[in-house]
Amino acid sequence: MGAPLAIIGAIGACTVGTDRYESDMKIKATPARLAGLASLFFVSTASASIPPPPSAVELAQRGDDLAWSITEGLTTEIGPRQAGTEAEAAARRWALAKLTALGFQNVREENYNMPTWVRGEETASLTGPFHPQRLAIAALGNSASTGAKGIEGDIAYFASYDALVAAPDHFVQGKIVFIDHQMEPTQDGSGYGYYGRGRFSGPNVAAKKGATAIVIRSIGTDDHRNPHTGVTNFEDGVKPIPAGAISNPDADLLVRQWQRAQKIRAKEVPLGYVAAALRMKLLLTPRSLGQQVSGNVIAEVAGSDRTASPVIIACHLDSWDLGTGAIDDASGCGIITAAAKHVMTAGQPRRTIRILWAGAEEVGVFGGKAYFDAHGKEKHAVALESDFGADRVWRIDFKLPDSAKALSDRIAAAVMPFGVVRGRQPANGGADIGALVQAGVPAVDLAQDGTRYFDIHHTPDDTLDKVDPAQLRQNVVVWTAVLAILANSGDGELP
Amino acid sequence: MGAPLAIIGAIGACTVGTDRYESDMKIKATPARLAGLASLFFVSTASASIPPPPSAVELAQRGDDLAWSITEGLTTEIGPRQAGTEAEAAARRWALAKLTALGFQNVREENYNMPTWVRGEETASLTGPFHPQRLAIAALGNSASTGAKGIEGDIAYFASYDALVAAPDHFVQGKIVFIDHQMEPTQDGSGYGYYGRGRFSGPNVAAKKGATAIVIRSIGTDDHRNPHTGVTNFEDGVKPIPAGAISNPDADLLVRQWQRAQKIRAKEVPLGYVAAALRMKLLLTPRSLGQQVSGNVIAEVAGSDRTASPVIIACHLDSWDLGTGAIDDASGCGIITAAAKHVMTAGQPRRTIRILWAGAEEVGVFGGKAYFDAHGKEKHAVALESDFGADRVWRIDFKLPDSAKALSDRIAAAVMPFGVVRGRQPANGGADIGALVQAGVPAVDLAQDGTRYFDIHHTPDDTLDKVDPAQLRQNVVVWTAVLAILANSGDGELP
Repeated sequence: MGAPLAIIGAIGACTVGTDRYESDMKIKATPARLAGLASLFFVSTASASIPPPPSAVELAQRGDDLAWSITEGLTTEIGPRQAGTEAEAAARRWALAKLTALGFQNVREENYNMPTWVRGEETASLTGPFHPQRLAIAALGNSASTGAKGIEGDIAYFASYDALVAAPDHFVQGKIVFIDHQMEPTQDGSGYGYYGRGRFSGPNVAAKKGATAIVIRSIGTDDHRNPHTGVTNFEDGVKPIPAGAISNPDADLLVRQWQRAQKIRAKEVPLGYVAAALRMKLLLTPRSLGQQVSGNVIAEVAGSDRTASPVIIACHLDSWDLGTGAIDDASGCGIITAAAKHVMTAGQPRRTIRILWAGAEEVGVFGGKAYFDAHGKEKHAVALESDFGADRVWRIDFKLPDSAKALSDRIAAAVMPFGVVRGRQPANGGADIGALVQAGVPAVDLAQDGTRYFDIHHTPDDTLDKVDPAQLRQNVVVWTAVLAILANSGDGELP
Repeated sequence: MGAPLAIIGAIGACTVGTDRYESDMKIKATPARLAGLASLFFVSTASASIPPPPSAVELAQRGDDLAWSITEGLTTEIGPRQAGTEAEAAARRWALAKLTALGFQNVREENYNMPTWVRGEETASLTGPFHPQRLAIAALGNSASTGAKGIEGDIAYFASYDALVAAPDHFVQGKIVFIDHQMEPTQDGSGYGYYGRGRFSGPNVAAKKGATAIVIRSIGTDDHRNPHTGVTNFEDGVKPIPAGAISNPDADLLVRQWQRAQKIRAKEVPLGYVAAALRMKLLLTPRSLGQQVSGNVIAEVAGSDRTASPVIIACHLDSWDLGTGAIDDASGCGIITAAAKHVMTAGQPRRTIRILWAGAEEVGVFGGKAYFDAHGKEKHAVALESDFGADRVWRIDFKLPDSAKALSDRIAAAVMPFGVVRGRQPANGGADIGALVQAGVPAVDLAQDGTRYFDIHHTPDDTLDKVDPAQLRQNVVVWTAVLAILANSGDGELP
């Protein structure tokens, strides 16, 4: 059977599946409703011949601009949306107006307080033994300040986070630690946890060993002079130290100077330089604003069966301050919202679809925690999140109860024509739905291609031009197919 | 005939050609000398079979690291080398030591004074009618200052430089002019003159029409948040205005906000925004340091015939301040110097090869002018320059006297195996040899592939990692072949 018929069949199956619950649900799966959803994917369902599935280019040429419109709107009218700041509040106002205008129900803001850290001045230079050179640097979230005068010190080089962990304290004491370790791209983003330890934990380790500051090679795969920021955390009782990330070209320079300085000290290179340690001058003046208001924005497609548990779909509204948060994560909000809108337009689903545009994800998942505190005891059918850019969905993973075996098969068949393979590992969920999934809520992951994600992630380069409209639409098509099936699933299939 | 034999033949031909002048020149083309030069290109010349020409990968794997060493050294030990500053002076000291260590003769510095402009603080924001957003901006060389408090004003949008030229003054008066016009890449760099008018002349035109300031879309082909700086010039009698370039993603944002603001004013988009012009806040505080010392660094391979005019080969030592001047133009100095060194190593050439590492090219070709003032009346056989990055040479162009027809054929045949086609237009020369060529000195252009040059040009991203070692070596191989032939050319061929 040709792929398109498989898809129509899958969507049909979901509606047929719904029919099985019709006596309970008082809804009717009409041909018009089916045609409405099918028309999202196919120019014509009446053709006797079986056309190939639409290509990404074809998908991009179709009229579905909602995900783009949200991504473009947030990045153009608001821009950076750092958690706890006025920019994030402006983004919530924008979101409330947008989601209301789109016709969703129960559009609301749910606020909470959170500790807020903001960037100050940031400069760094290599000051000797060679001619001084400035480095492109960004402070890491929760970095301490160097004070307005900055600090200067010898650099202690470590090839990796593990090398820093293994080092005796006296290698580090009184020095500015540098962690090298060039991140390599992976399609599934699995390198983030591995390479990311330098940022997540490196500053804490360096502080405990007595470093005066730490500078890391950006957790990023690009070669531009744009450092990658991101949050770091210090354990209770550990006094935070200044912590920053330099861009990959700057890290390359530091490493070359480090190697040269070592050779001069070993008298291997008689260049006329005085043998001396490599030195850095560092100025970072971030500050804490204490507790500030942040919030989640929530909207719903009200389901026809009020007793059925909702499907929750999440993205995050906040972004880092350096870029405009286009791929992280305006596009995620665009994708999930467009999918929900399409399902709503095709006809009222059985289950409520709850759209969560979470606040304050970047700085510690405060929005996700607040949602869980407020709603964690409610039953949720299944949770999904889009927070890995805007490139195509290439794999689907499930973490569903045994009762959902047939459901997962229907879903996998529905997305197969769009180039999505079925994974063998359980779904992870995502940051904002993490607490729910941890508490047992089923999850489906629509894994995006992350090959170029860490070129852009948390840098000034996270701007609209990095979003590929064709791949963005593939996301929406895949999400719509999956969401339509999940939102019409039965109580015997999901909790 | 196989390509490698063609090359050896060409190099041989040059030596044979030299033999014709032997009675005048008192030099001897020995087999060892020929073999020395040929060995630069071929692992073995003794093989009976004819191997294919070496690939870029093969070239990259050979042992010639001099061009890389110069490029790496200048960018690592010195970094940015803005004309007239201490950094350029440090680069001259580095250059004198390096060129002396390489065994060149008559290594010297020739100083001159030049007006020096340096960057200050630079920030820009779009301040309304939407949520304020910061733009990545760099002042253009010779920009005026906004003063420490900055300025704020309405933006006057122009789709291109030509649109600004055509506009009536009242469109511009009291406003911050913005020139759009996305530069597209070309292999031969021919777009620079066309698109570059916005930078070269846009500020002067805007100032004459009464603008308070001008911001242009960067003259660049990339999509990173790194603005492209570069010099601009105001006519005598025109009061300079603040002038900056914003990165392409920032220009995209400005254009989207501009379009939205127009729609709001036309009441086409009832978004709840107040109809208002798009506004920008701009802070640029560059300053003039008056006349400062700059200088050319010159070195020579002394030719065997003191009566023969020299071959001059040029690059520029200064760089813009934002990056480390790796492709603009440390690599150019690496290429020409490595070629001269290889020719010298192979045996003393008939003509002197004069290596000019010019100062202060970026800010107005002061080094080239100073060279011409000091040496313009001396006879020069031919002039060549490398100042278009480090990507491969793809075309050769000539501007030679009629007497050099056979010479140009030999040269074209020598470089053909390395993927270099013969162009149909006359050679241009280059900025630093421009005055010489204008005065009638013959020129050969080894045109580099500029497809990605304007991704990097004049940005913070001009760093060592952008240099492809394989393509850099192809440059050296091509330059060496050409230089060997030119430096051994006869008085009947070149002036």
